[in-house]
Amino acid sequence: MADMKSTASIAKRGLVMVITGNGKGKTTSAFGQILRAVGQGYQVCVIQFMKGRKYGEIIACEKYLPHITFYQFGLDSFVMRENSAQVDIDLACQGLEKAKEVIQNGKYNMVILDEINVAVDFDLISEEAVLDLVKNKPPELDLILTGRYASKKLIDIADLVSEVTEIKHHYNAGIKDRPGIEY
Amino acid sequence: MADMKSTASIAKRGLVMVITGNGKGKTTSAFGQILRAVGQGYQVCVIQFMKGRKYGEIIACEKYLPHITFYQFGLDSFVMRENSAQVDIDLACQGLEKAKEVIQNGKYNMVILDEINVAVDFDLISEEAVLDLVKNKPPELDLILTGRYASKKLIDIADLVSEVTEIKHHYNAGIKDRPGIEY
Repeated sequence: MADMKSTASIAKRGLVMVITGNGKGKTTSAFGQILRAVGQGYQVCVIQFMKGRKYGEIIACEKYLPHITFYQFGLDSFVMRENSAQVDIDLACQGLEKAKEVIQNGKYNMVILDEINVAVDFDLISEEAVLDLVKNKPPELDLILTGRYASKKLIDIADLVSEVTEIKHHYNAGIKDRPGIEY
Repeated sequence: MADMKSTASIAKRGLVMVITGNGKGKTTSAFGQILRAVGQGYQVCVIQFMKGRKYGEIIACEKYLPHITFYQFGLDSFVMRENSAQVDIDLACQGLEKAKEVIQNGKYNMVILDEINVAVDFDLISEEAVLDLVKNKPPELDLILTGRYASKKLIDIADLVSEVTEIKHHYNAGIKDRPGIEY
């Protein structure tokens, strides 16, 4: 608890940061931000939507880094826009509930909602619910929302928006995904 | 050494990845990539050009993560395009020499050359030298080059190029940089 108190004063004015776009490096960037924050003594919570795999970044966090709490709300398979099932909706809604809880419970300095923009775009959760989440966050909390297709309304209320654009991708040259690079 | 051997086979076809653009999230993304790579057992080396501070991400890596080696070749102050001094050039050239060494010595699966694109754009080191570095890398090594102003020739020979664009930045709203967010 002593630790919590000392870190609770870090974020004087919490930021809403959105990382969107079609390029590689959005979740990656969020995890770099986690590393930086942990280095400065933050307590961090990560909620992943539509993801259920043990990615390399999660393995590293769980194995080596303190001060991080993880929740995944997704299956091991990819959700596509046109083939989402009831289970995808149910999981995303559970993720949203967990997000509300960890944003409000005072335990964290930074909360990452990974791929939440896609969950909204795929209609798994409502845009309005996410906007409410952001508007009602404690002032000192840093909140990061990642994923393609960030909505205009979210961009409007964010403090920082970075768009990652694909200029070139090795997939297009036939090079497949690989541990350590994509996951 | 047993560790090295087991990881040396990870990267079947090493990639040249460039992270450029004017938005927040380039170095951050490279450090997320480091986290992912370390989670998958990679040996990683980071060389930072034009940077000399103990950023949060470095504190976290040094304190918690194994398999990472760091070198910084910069002062604690920022180099501007028009005010670079001989010491900036000397440090960047030393960074380039170290980069050659760690790319060729077979100890690492992934090498990050952080801000090297800026060092080239500011004429601290030559574009040709960096292109040679990339072209002569061992085939299995993953190489990541970050920083604004990536040159066209570098983009041409890269496998992946992501451009991070600033859509919105809290600096423009008068919010200053802060530990855990910018450093």
